[in-house]
Amino acid sequence: MNAPVATSLLHPEFVQRPVPEAFVQALAARFGSQCSTALAVREQHGRDEGAIAAPPPAAVVFAESTQDVQDAVRLCARHGVPVIPYGAGSSLEGHLLAVEGGISIDVSRMNRILSVNTEDLTVTVQPGITRKQLNDAIKDTGFFFPIDPGADASIGGMASTRASGTNAVRYGTMRENVLSLEVVTASGEVIRTGNRAKKSAAGYDLTRLMVGSEGTLGIFTEITVRLYPLPEAVSAAVCSFPSIEAAVRTVIQTIQVGVPIARVELIDVNSVRMVNAYSKLELREEPMLLMEFHGSPTGVKEQAEMVQEIAGEFGGNAFEWAERPEDRTRLFTARHNAYFAAVASRPGCRCITTDACVPISRLADALLDCVTEADASGIPYFLVGHVGDGNFHFGYLIDPDSEDERTRAEQLNSQLVQRAIALGGTCTGEHGVGIHKQGFLREEAGDGAVQMMRAIKQALDPRNILNPGKIFALQ
Amino acid sequence: MNAPVATSLLHPEFVQRPVPEAFVQALAARFGSQCSTALAVREQHGRDEGAIAAPPPAAVVFAESTQDVQDAVRLCARHGVPVIPYGAGSSLEGHLLAVEGGISIDVSRMNRILSVNTEDLTVTVQPGITRKQLNDAIKDTGFFFPIDPGADASIGGMASTRASGTNAVRYGTMRENVLSLEVVTASGEVIRTGNRAKKSAAGYDLTRLMVGSEGTLGIFTEITVRLYPLPEAVSAAVCSFPSIEAAVRTVIQTIQVGVPIARVELIDVNSVRMVNAYSKLELREEPMLLMEFHGSPTGVKEQAEMVQEIAGEFGGNAFEWAERPEDRTRLFTARHNAYFAAVASRPGCRCITTDACVPISRLADALLDCVTEADASGIPYFLVGHVGDGNFHFGYLIDPDSEDERTRAEQLNSQLVQRAIALGGTCTGEHGVGIHKQGFLREEAGDGAVQMMRAIKQALDPRNILNPGKIFALQ
Repeated sequence: MNAPVATSLLHPEFVQRPVPEAFVQALAARFGSQCSTALAVREQHGRDEGAIAAPPPAAVVFAESTQDVQDAVRLCARHGVPVIPYGAGSSLEGHLLAVEGGISIDVSRMNRILSVNTEDLTVTVQPGITRKQLNDAIKDTGFFFPIDPGADASIGGMASTRASGTNAVRYGTMRENVLSLEVVTASGEVIRTGNRAKKSAAGYDLTRLMVGSEGTLGIFTEITVRLYPLPEAVSAAVCSFPSIEAAVRTVIQTIQVGVPIARVELIDVNSVRMVNAYSKLELREEPMLLMEFHGSPTGVKEQAEMVQEIAGEFGGNAFEWAERPEDRTRLFTARHNAYFAAVASRPGCRCITTDACVPISRLADALLDCVTEADASGIPYFLVGHVGDGNFHFGYLIDPDSEDERTRAEQLNSQLVQRAIALGGTCTGEHGVGIHKQGFLREEAGDGAVQMMRAIKQALDPRNILNPGKIFALQ
Repeated sequence: MNAPVATSLLHPEFVQRPVPEAFVQALAARFGSQCSTALAVREQHGRDEGAIAAPPPAAVVFAESTQDVQDAVRLCARHGVPVIPYGAGSSLEGHLLAVEGGISIDVSRMNRILSVNTEDLTVTVQPGITRKQLNDAIKDTGFFFPIDPGADASIGGMASTRASGTNAVRYGTMRENVLSLEVVTASGEVIRTGNRAKKSAAGYDLTRLMVGSEGTLGIFTEITVRLYPLPEAVSAAVCSFPSIEAAVRTVIQTIQVGVPIARVELIDVNSVRMVNAYSKLELREEPMLLMEFHGSPTGVKEQAEMVQEIAGEFGGNAFEWAERPEDRTRLFTARHNAYFAAVASRPGCRCITTDACVPISRLADALLDCVTEADASGIPYFLVGHVGDGNFHFGYLIDPDSEDERTRAEQLNSQLVQRAIALGGTCTGEHGVGIHKQGFLREEAGDGAVQMMRAIKQALDPRNILNPGKIFALQ
């Protein structure tokens, strides 16, 4: 989900820690022109694409090497100053906000590919490279990195938030695709969390602990991720359904019989209308599934035929093929533009986005109840979902000047999350917790599990300098 | 790998903590006949299938519920007594040994299936159920749990050691297949590490932190794992090669072109000879690959044809099919019996097993150098490998009464591990660290990473009662 740069939606009373003058001087001495205190630069680094605002960081360091990150973190450690890693700025839950003050370390200049190992299907990169930069750079190797959260996020940021997106149903999320990390710890030490072996039983899984830790346990300086062979054949299809339930039942059965579908996206009728208006398309105004199949030519054909047959059983119709790349691009562009189409449908609106994920067997129930509530609220909304994983996003399109609409949208979000948790799901499938979902995390994980997370944080970052105030409050 | 019950190979000076009399009385009062202090029972629970021995635990509690585990852990916490979870006793690296004394909690009576959710492809079980019990119980559902480490290990034990085995190349390891856990913590609290949603970005990945933690961070009382649809078609094939390198090159290319092979096992010529003698077979005495393909009938045929073509390029010959279940069973029984065949080839011997895993591109190099060294040593050995993952096991067949052979075998193991680490690999692909590989873990992960593991352990188990002395020393 892409979202426009937010002005403030909430104004919590963030308490910023003092930044000692000696620290500022030491930082300037070490980093010179790699360090900026210009307001515009600080403001740019003090926000993400979410809806919460906070005062900007005191300075921004543009790191160009692991050594730079180490030196900056060591200075922060010495002076007790918070430090927030910054990649592409596309996170959604307030991850980048300097809620306790401190500095931002921008790693976007650390965007090199360090080694491509096509025999092992791995690539090692610096954290600032974006997923599109990575795929462009390796496009002639016959391999690709599949994780696609929509935004052109940095690989470091994607690892930090355990990102996923449209083709996680086949290729997994960052959890499955990060093999190892080089990490600068809270004391400025460098550790490696793993190696390039495909599997390992050597001690605690520090890689998976770091993935999704949102910058609170360490700053990533090298990342080894998996590559996949470019599929020999790709085809896409779109199919309309009489109801959301029929579409979801089709997906459940597809997964259950083991069709290795590469993408399967649900778009509700509101989204279809908005996309038609925005992109001058004439998609049938019914809930629809957008699908993509990867494999051998025979395999792809077989997969698609199986899904078509299943869809037929649930009343799916207008099963249309898109075998040519340009037709596929057109379809998935429509999907990727759903957000912009929605925002354009209500000029001046702001979008409040949800990110719940439920076991797929409960997806129809979850969606139908949420649709009923959203319809009853009178607030315009749209619904898209990575339904193969049970992950879905409602976008509530509110008037930013209406306190009432905001309250009602947050209430819808809250009801939706509580429903997802009650159904055995999670408040966040892929966006992370950040600031916005800390209350939901407590409800979902329980006090004992959150307390365990806190204990780990305190053990690894006793001065609480690494992106403090995110995921959970320490007190 | 199965290994016979060991008598002592090494006799480290394990220092056992005192067990207060008040603790023993409280344990007996709470657990009555569920608690045993009989020497035979304690001895059975104080060893695993590895080669190290230690004095037995002071008592064994047969837990029948989460509450039992909680109560036992609370008593241990109150009295500072170590507690070691015990499943099927099939671990290999000394995981179950009471090296600091304390009690064993046997969870084998906690072997119920709590819920099967075929729509979500998940099953929730108690930790004591073994993988064969699980698959037997769900065999009529059309789904199966694929992880197969050879031994009929408990699911709890497999999660604890991050086990994998022959078909991890397609289905992943316990790392990828455990969705969530109920865990009794060091203080006797119960937490849940996740839910049944297929993906989540909700805070630290406690599930993955617990998987592979070898009983040192908590005791698992419920485990939710993934199921897979039984493949519509299965076929197996065996192919001989002029050299190990030719076999390995075939595997690399197979993986690289994206053939979703389900199993691909390397057996060296020594193993073939031993298996022929043991199982009265007439397999061609050359290095060979045993392969299995899962999918649709067309897909399986296509996969196998691709591999046959690749094998042909590397001089593979005698590509034989086994489409009938009994022929497949015969082939994979030969593989599973390789260990017993090897031990039978040198009566009275003991087997010292290695477990390194390297990036697949380095596998041929790693194997060839290790073969050269093993041949030069004069010690009989065999080599089998889950080569699709780069994981391989040498078994050195030593005379247990020969100090010299033991020293040389340990030296071969040490050289092999150092080579694997230098090639970007790990000292343990699937057996875990336990007691035996603590030195290797330090070499592999580095002091900083091991120190991070220690810090986590100390934060979550400040009195060091959960399986102390495993993975790393605390001082």
